[in-house]
Amino acid sequence: MMNSPLLLSHFIERAERYFPTKQVISRTLNGKKSLTYQQIGERTRRLASALAQFGIKKGDRVGTFAWNTHRHLEAYFAIPGIGAVLHTINLRLSQDHIAYVINHAEDRVLFVDADVWPLIAQLRDQLSSVEAFVLMSDGELPEVDWPNVFSYEEFIAKGDPSFEFVQSIDETSPAGICYTSATTGKPKGVVYSHRGIYLHSMALGLADTAGLSEKDVLMPVVPMFHVNAWGLPFAATWFGTTQVMPGPQFTPQVLAELIDEEKVTLAAGVPTIWLGLLRELETGVYQTEHLRAILCGGSAAPAAMIQTFEQKYNVPFLHAYGMTETSPLVTVSMVKSYQADLNEEETLELRAKQGLVVPGLEVKVVGPNGEVKPDGAEMGELLIRGPWIADHYYKAEEVSDAFADGWLHTGDVATIDEEGFIKLVDRTKDLIKSGGEWISSVDLENAIMAHEDVFEAAVVSVPDPKWQERPVACVVLKDPNKGSVAEADIRRFLEGKFPSWWLPDRVIFMDELPKTSVGKFLKRALREQVKEQMEANR
Amino acid sequence: MMNSPLLLSHFIERAERYFPTKQVISRTLNGKKSLTYQQIGERTRRLASALAQFGIKKGDRVGTFAWNTHRHLEAYFAIPGIGAVLHTINLRLSQDHIAYVINHAEDRVLFVDADVWPLIAQLRDQLSSVEAFVLMSDGELPEVDWPNVFSYEEFIAKGDPSFEFVQSIDETSPAGICYTSATTGKPKGVVYSHRGIYLHSMALGLADTAGLSEKDVLMPVVPMFHVNAWGLPFAATWFGTTQVMPGPQFTPQVLAELIDEEKVTLAAGVPTIWLGLLRELETGVYQTEHLRAILCGGSAAPAAMIQTFEQKYNVPFLHAYGMTETSPLVTVSMVKSYQADLNEEETLELRAKQGLVVPGLEVKVVGPNGEVKPDGAEMGELLIRGPWIADHYYKAEEVSDAFADGWLHTGDVATIDEEGFIKLVDRTKDLIKSGGEWISSVDLENAIMAHEDVFEAAVVSVPDPKWQERPVACVVLKDPNKGSVAEADIRRFLEGKFPSWWLPDRVIFMDELPKTSVGKFLKRALREQVKEQMEANR
Repeated sequence: MMNSPLLLSHFIERAERYFPTKQVISRTLNGKKSLTYQQIGERTRRLASALAQFGIKKGDRVGTFAWNTHRHLEAYFAIPGIGAVLHTINLRLSQDHIAYVINHAEDRVLFVDADVWPLIAQLRDQLSSVEAFVLMSDGELPEVDWPNVFSYEEFIAKGDPSFEFVQSIDETSPAGICYTSATTGKPKGVVYSHRGIYLHSMALGLADTAGLSEKDVLMPVVPMFHVNAWGLPFAATWFGTTQVMPGPQFTPQVLAELIDEEKVTLAAGVPTIWLGLLRELETGVYQTEHLRAILCGGSAAPAAMIQTFEQKYNVPFLHAYGMTETSPLVTVSMVKSYQADLNEEETLELRAKQGLVVPGLEVKVVGPNGEVKPDGAEMGELLIRGPWIADHYYKAEEVSDAFADGWLHTGDVATIDEEGFIKLVDRTKDLIKSGGEWISSVDLENAIMAHEDVFEAAVVSVPDPKWQERPVACVVLKDPNKGSVAEADIRRFLEGKFPSWWLPDRVIFMDELPKTSVGKFLKRALREQVKEQMEANR
Repeated sequence: MMNSPLLLSHFIERAERYFPTKQVISRTLNGKKSLTYQQIGERTRRLASALAQFGIKKGDRVGTFAWNTHRHLEAYFAIPGIGAVLHTINLRLSQDHIAYVINHAEDRVLFVDADVWPLIAQLRDQLSSVEAFVLMSDGELPEVDWPNVFSYEEFIAKGDPSFEFVQSIDETSPAGICYTSATTGKPKGVVYSHRGIYLHSMALGLADTAGLSEKDVLMPVVPMFHVNAWGLPFAATWFGTTQVMPGPQFTPQVLAELIDEEKVTLAAGVPTIWLGLLRELETGVYQTEHLRAILCGGSAAPAAMIQTFEQKYNVPFLHAYGMTETSPLVTVSMVKSYQADLNEEETLELRAKQGLVVPGLEVKVVGPNGEVKPDGAEMGELLIRGPWIADHYYKAEEVSDAFADGWLHTGDVATIDEEGFIKLVDRTKDLIKSGGEWISSVDLENAIMAHEDVFEAAVVSVPDPKWQERPVACVVLKDPNKGSVAEADIRRFLEGKFPSWWLPDRVIFMDELPKTSVGKFLKRALREQVKEQMEANR
């Protein structure tokens, strides 16, 4: 067979040739605009050419600090298209971490969205590697007297619209890098190869996973700075899928409007996004009938939310699982053909699991001593292996335990049932160890979120002299009912659903829950908050 | 990213773990039987182990001379599972060629179906490399006094059911070999790598190609000795798809019965198979409502046949194109989302084309001097490039022109329209050159086959003193009307559809048309036949 390397330039070339009139709809600060793949392709070639002219070479890192827009999509292909490395920087990192990842990656050029420019401007003196800044605006420039600050449109105007992407790239070469927003310590860089992204993109198009197709109108709400928006913009471009980029201001209202106006068929994001959208949809003014599925991952989606989407809005939930180290697609909650006659409750239970591992990857769960648990047995740490799974952190001096024995050790505690369905139980570090037994904070959270007055809930451990640790629930109520639910109501709601010793010792009502930069509950901060509050109340 | 090789053992391991109860239905000479993937997996491991015990090592060739059955499927995975090379031998080759390909491949073991055993038995003395014969029967053995003749069940009984497939295989290593049934000269071997088959299998599962899924019941009618039954058994096993193997006697009646009884959703084969099936379906006794599509390739399917399947039986036709050298999937006649509102005639015209190149491959058409024709321009030879396209023939002493400049030169003449749809016009050698202009034999054939009384038709060239070559049509009428259609009727039917100088000089009615071993018209033999007949009539 031909030694044809698996390169990302193939994706954009295919979109240009076969889907030149298909569109990318992009909502920037200056309103909504549409570009065809022909235009995107030409602009991508200009950008690649301009970067090459600037002196960017194979292996050089180029950073993006930007929302989901057409310009960010162009950078997705232009940077790897010359063999350079696309470093997508998480906008929600702390200032220290932003400076750290840019310096650690040694980004030579930085592409920055206009509204987040001030975050970069104040770090200017700390950024030792950056030689040029490109403001991703429609033309206006910030008032700074630095050299090499360009507007994006000015920068690409100098490029050649028929520039040929570099073909002499080894498929295992880095195409992208994304730092994990670790809750402790410095962020760690995960390097994505052309080969890894290519295979991952194929996996997204399989009928039994997300089934991403030319016929879809895809809206990636998951940020493009977060694991390449789950790799969706890469795959969608390859398949000629219409893409809707929600830009910087993706409020529930904006998302509902885009779903309605652009006839979105597939939307992707974390559970908190869909909780917000549900509230917006309750206004009843939006059409959602084109939505064939919501792809949901990042953290476990509560069964109650899945149920509302499926039953009230007739929108199936594609529950998925992955992490920065896994590109990220690992599982999709596909229901097998012979499970089609399960009853509603059983189906919902199945779909609330993270699902079956997608073709191409291998998984296992192991106990504390590394012993492999057979499918259908008890929980253990989830280990993953395959061609789009990371095997090191960028410039790490030693091999992390996370990659011991050729497997990625996820730090996620999971069960795998007899059908092979993975269910996340908890993070290893978020499990609550009470009296020598494990309590799953996630199971408790999902049960509490099924209460009709609860908007969201997180369960954390507090130290306990007798039991070592005990669970405490932090609950945000839906607005209209605020104050009408008491601690005892929540506890009563949980009774019978769990062993009595699982029930939270305390239920604390809060206005909001601290979240990580990608919308997951920030359990560490919450534990501190709870501890302080309980000490203050003592 | 992890350096995980793309190996075929991953496919069968996935089927065993996640789809142990899903079935492979196999119709052998002893009737229909069902095996689960758990059983198939165990038997495959036994077979792999028995081959290893026999001394088969990495890189050794093992031949199969067999129909589509569960045992052949086991060989598909057991042989590459120990790093050996699956050599599928075309049952319809001439005796000379059968002996040639076995000797050329140096097969060490030969797996042979019971009904074709006599073909091998009489070649015994010519097969210099074969050390053992395994008869793929239910137990009975032929009456020969050779050493090392085993029954399949006896052979695998000695194997270890929990044998571990060899993992230390480079993904570019050969997994299979298939000889092209050339119409002239010796057959040429095409070597398939693990990587090539793996990527090709992914391509078969994409929503925009065949969309092969766990939910399908697949019946590959295309023989497993012909380009790995289009790679379908590999992909179907990976995805946990139910497979229906029609065995040695796949008459139209058997196929219609299997489609009905097994609720087949996707059937795959060459146009002549579907012409036969259409006649059988006219009995009206079969249910076909589970059939979501017919995957058709090998030669161009007449638009009239596509229309009958789609309109009368509500079965969409997935028209595909490929060849032994391309694994084979190159195109599928997918209709783009924005083409959904074309009228019936336009849609049919589109679907009768070979379609869009699938993700992963590149195509172009070139003129006589190698100049690339832009999409939408005139016809030229089709060239293909990509990770599952052959780049040499096995043990070829010199690089064939077929692989010049890093592209496969298909010998097929095609147009690519402005939407990127490929339409095969002819084989370079079957084009008719009349008065310095080209006439497409395929276009004429399709037009004639649209006549309601015509069963099938082939058009060939005859030498002409004035015009160099002229077209002659060979026509087989549908039984009931035999004799009722005259030469002039056919010519009149074509008038207005083509320039007058395209119309065949003669229409010859025949009882049947000579075909290649894989059901394509044998134009070379037909040209001889026509020449003789015309000389006899002079």
